Amino acid sequence: MGKVLIIGAGGVGTVVATKMAGLPEVFTEIMLASRTKSKCDAIAEKIGGNKIKTAKVDADNVPELVELIKSFGPDLLVNVALPYQDLHIMDACLEAGVSYLDTANYEPLDEAKYEYKWQWAYQDKFKKAGLTAILGCGFDPGVTSVFTAYAAKHHFDEIHYLDIVDCNGGDHGKAFATNFNPEINIREVTQKGKYWQDGQWVESEPHEIHKPLTYPNIGSRESYLIYHEELESLVKNFPTLKRARFWMTFGQEYLTHLRVIQNIGMAGIKPILYEGKEIVPIQFLKAVLPDPGELGENYTGGTSIGCRIRGIKDGVERTYYVYNNCSHQVAYEETGAQGVSYTTGVPATIGAMMYLQGLWKKPGVFNVEEFNPDPFMEQLNKLGLPWVEEFNVDLEL
Amino acid sequence: MGKVLIIGAGGVGTVVATKMAGLPEVFTEIMLASRTKSKCDAIAEKIGGNKIKTAKVDADNVPELVELIKSFGPDLLVNVALPYQDLHIMDACLEAGVSYLDTANYEPLDEAKYEYKWQWAYQDKFKKAGLTAILGCGFDPGVTSVFTAYAAKHHFDEIHYLDIVDCNGGDHGKAFATNFNPEINIREVTQKGKYWQDGQWVESEPHEIHKPLTYPNIGSRESYLIYHEELESLVKNFPTLKRARFWMTFGQEYLTHLRVIQNIGMAGIKPILYEGKEIVPIQFLKAVLPDPGELGENYTGGTSIGCRIRGIKDGVERTYYVYNNCSHQVAYEETGAQGVSYTTGVPATIGAMMYLQGLWKKPGVFNVEEFNPDPFMEQLNKLGLPWVEEFNVDLEL
Repeated sequence: MGKVLIIGAGGVGTVVATKMAGLPEVFTEIMLASRTKSKCDAIAEKIGGNKIKTAKVDADNVPELVELIKSFGPDLLVNVALPYQDLHIMDACLEAGVSYLDTANYEPLDEAKYEYKWQWAYQDKFKKAGLTAILGCGFDPGVTSVFTAYAAKHHFDEIHYLDIVDCNGGDHGKAFATNFNPEINIREVTQKGKYWQDGQWVESEPHEIHKPLTYPNIGSRESYLIYHEELESLVKNFPTLKRARFWMTFGQEYLTHLRVIQNIGMAGIKPILYEGKEIVPIQFLKAVLPDPGELGENYTGGTSIGCRIRGIKDGVERTYYVYNNCSHQVAYEETGAQGVSYTTGVPATIGAMMYLQGLWKKPGVFNVEEFNPDPFMEQLNKLGLPWVEEFNVDLEL
Repeated sequence: MGKVLIIGAGGVGTVVATKMAGLPEVFTEIMLASRTKSKCDAIAEKIGGNKIKTAKVDADNVPELVELIKSFGPDLLVNVALPYQDLHIMDACLEAGVSYLDTANYEPLDEAKYEYKWQWAYQDKFKKAGLTAILGCGFDPGVTSVFTAYAAKHHFDEIHYLDIVDCNGGDHGKAFATNFNPEINIREVTQKGKYWQDGQWVESEPHEIHKPLTYPNIGSRESYLIYHEELESLVKNFPTLKRARFWMTFGQEYLTHLRVIQNIGMAGIKPILYEGKEIVPIQFLKAVLPDPGELGENYTGGTSIGCRIRGIKDGVERTYYVYNNCSHQVAYEETGAQGVSYTTGVPATIGAMMYLQGLWKKPGVFNVEEFNPDPFMEQLNKLGLPWVEEFNVDLEL
């Protein structure tokens, strides 16, 4: 059906390449490229069967990207590199004339700021070029956005209250480790809280708002209101929303570690001069911390991520909870990557499939909730992320 | 009376230079040298009156040290640089023919190991050269060793139990900061505990043994048994000791920070490869943490360090507690450095005075308790570290 170029060979890239390799009728040719070609080669070798081509590319180098895209000639580029690199990769896609999909919105390197404005500004360019850019097609953003679109389409006339709830009930057995790129993770969870209410954003101190929530097959976990990027596009695309919030579970030890990391200055994103070299503390910390890609082996438990929605159907208020539970162990056995990488990589694979099948293909820049959720929801069930719906349950929120 | 060369321009070097500059009848010429000459110049300028010469020197570079010593021609070199550099500086002293004094024993850069063996091995060399090396002449080691020698000389026939108690009851107002070089500090306090009992060393887990102790004018503080280098020479020089221990106070927050720093790998002393450069995590952390030299300004409270001793005098058991309390604020007002630098720098100054006055001058390598404690004790009272004696009090230990 089509050729795809994957940029980024971390845990998510591993999952995307593995999943795509298992769907040769959709992904007829696959190339995996990253700054470190040996990482791509190792993934390709593990998948075997010469199914994955590999290449070296610096995702910040637009001419290099353009050259690689032109020489391989993909129908779609799947960006699972770093969020800082989104704009460079989008520029390269425009120049080389290829459609684009990513899993996390662009953020500037020197400022922890999560806004779609930079990528939405590419709307006209992609439209004119007749290319599609699919933004935020991981789990959250991604599946949570599709869950919301699916609820709005099938179960509600108006959705009023949305709470996205993200629990990692797993245990990796390390004193401290992050589940994805520690730099991105720490930037995200140490920022101020923010949620949408009655037409405006309300800010809170980091981890100020929290309460225990019950997660299916996991139990009660303290959950913290944090800002998460899909809220920005969801409140725009679902204007009936009176309130939209995002909750994530953190253990006390995790929060203690984060607090100390901030106190000692190691969460800093501005470079300091160390022996004549500019070094960003959080990037150095990343090099010292366990590699999230290596957390899989003894990772027990799993994730539970979903949407809790309250709204109106046929004039009656109803509640709705749609979620997926994903076992770290099962994910690891299938792909060699843990659940957090798996839950991001599988939706990216499905998004790419939607594009190649022509189901999610229109000129411009789109968040995933702007497409038809039905075929995507169907593939979630088939490709390892089955979802469960509950109606008129206590949302706790 | 004599010329002195100070190596090291941190907080302790600041105190030593300032104190020496105030005693021109003893220290007729003073030079302050360090890797960063601008730091020496800033200290010299603050002291004023052209009392301090400055120079640039790499304390790990023996030929460079020898050249500087020969060109300045001091009677004594006072080493307040890093403990890793002790041996290089001793080598240079031998080659250039100058006596030596330091405040902390040598430790290898790649191993947190506190032993005098490396420096004691210089005994014959210094003896043959007719030079004196005075080891560990700060507060602890240093004053605590002199306290013990003074007690043994004047108040006991035999000392049996020695507990050195070190409390920093100060508040620097930062979330986390170390009171001296964070690299040295963290290496020291994260090691295993160790104490002397009945002729052998007993090891304990880091921070395993702790109890509240009452410090004069401060109150009760949780105190942790840690290994401290003066124990090694004291049990050798006072063989009647049945038990010798060292206790230091730590707040819960400080310990939490230490635990996390270890968990995340930032206490590591082995280099990691980061962007093609070998970087030791704890050294990078040092560059990110607040400079201990800058803690002085709003540092309230103070230190209380002393010796609690139980032994026999005229056939009767007695207890004895000798201590000094030092206010961070008073230290800062006098020297621009906080109490922890002050309590190290003043004893180094007094030790240098003892040498130049011929009171602590004999060929060989010595720990300070091997000299006559009386003139040193007298100077402590005169130079800002007055001490208090208590007899037959409850030692709590």
